[in-house]
Amino acid sequence: MTITITAFKTSPDRGRGLARDTRLRWALEEVGQDYEVRLLSFEDMKRPGHLALNPFAQIPTYQADGLALFETGAIIFHIAEQASGLLPLGKAARARAITWMFAALNSVEPPILDLETARLLEHDKPWSQERMPMVIDRVRTRLRPLALRLETTDWLEDQFSAGDLLMVSVLQRLRSSGLLDEFPSLAAYVARGEARPAYQRAFAAQLAVFTAGAGDLT
Amino acid sequence: MTITITAFKTSPDRGRGLARDTRLRWALEEVGQDYEVRLLSFEDMKRPGHLALNPFAQIPTYQADGLALFETGAIIFHIAEQASGLLPLGKAARARAITWMFAALNSVEPPILDLETARLLEHDKPWSQERMPMVIDRVRTRLRPLALRLETTDWLEDQFSAGDLLMVSVLQRLRSSGLLDEFPSLAAYVARGEARPAYQRAFAAQLAVFTAGAGDLT
Repeated sequence: MTITITAFKTSPDRGRGLARDTRLRWALEEVGQDYEVRLLSFEDMKRPGHLALNPFAQIPTYQADGLALFETGAIIFHIAEQASGLLPLGKAARARAITWMFAALNSVEPPILDLETARLLEHDKPWSQERMPMVIDRVRTRLRPLALRLETTDWLEDQFSAGDLLMVSVLQRLRSSGLLDEFPSLAAYVARGEARPAYQRAFAAQLAVFTAGAGDLT
Repeated sequence: MTITITAFKTSPDRGRGLARDTRLRWALEEVGQDYEVRLLSFEDMKRPGHLALNPFAQIPTYQADGLALFETGAIIFHIAEQASGLLPLGKAARARAITWMFAALNSVEPPILDLETARLLEHDKPWSQERMPMVIDRVRTRLRPLALRLETTDWLEDQFSAGDLLMVSVLQRLRSSGLLDEFPSLAAYVARGEARPAYQRAFAAQLAVFTAGAGDLT
């Protein structure tokens, strides 16, 4: 079985590992699954061929054995179901790990995306300075309980799972904001995730794509 | 097995069915599973007993057989795994349905939540009028491809699934904005979801809670 994922030909984060293909690469490395990568330009992502894979015109997508999936969370869940290493075997522990997958993507990531939007797309608007503290406070509301939990445990439950993989990936988006530094237990948690050999391989692989393509940039 | 979920004692939406317990009630009705509801005040949600169930201090939660879950998406997935009716049996069709669950919660709901925040929490800010068109355009970016897909099909895939349940629930949040009316195929899709007997029972049950508690309101 050949797994093919899509990724940016030239990632807008310049290889810092924040594009969502890194999440898939990390998951595939955790379970020891080889994969191929098809690189797309921003124009490619709007073409019918890609829209058939992901109607929202985004990367990453996943193709294997005639099955085509999009949505990082769904793909990681699929990878986790096909192999061992990302979800515990016990029924209750598995359900708890899946809970953290959804928590990362539906409770923690939305206010962080809002902060990114405010910083990247609205920074030159007249309201930027006055609005920013409200946006940041909404992120803190989610970080506070998470930080408290991670003061006494290495991972969200007894062992590393796809829930941690997604939560660490979501929290990484905060690095440039300085917000992680307010919560030492979260900064340490992200560092634990990034220290995993599977993450290191995934990060290196996405960086190699950016470095190889950097010649295309003006 | 007794399933207990939590819900608002007095829902801030005044019984319009937008509180997330309605999504669980709908899922439980689709699979024909009885459940009990424990009602919480806003003070109750901040108490240690509830934070042990959901660190983010929100409803709904799910308890059954010693298992405690939070996150609506995770709970609905758990319900779908325990019974039939919410996820197709075929492996590929199941993965596609799960993809739509994540698409609803991670691609479509975040810009809609941002719109709600703008309308509810920032409507009296000096930037409200100028910023609103940007916020609405980000929602439209997600609605457009979804509307296109639903022009030729009743549900997101061949049959109603947990993906549709979540997508319809997410889209319902747009009703008061008038945005659904711009996309007739989405308005029709939401109406198809709401016409399901399971949804009707779920809606009536949450409305009954609000109506019974309305005497507590000033």
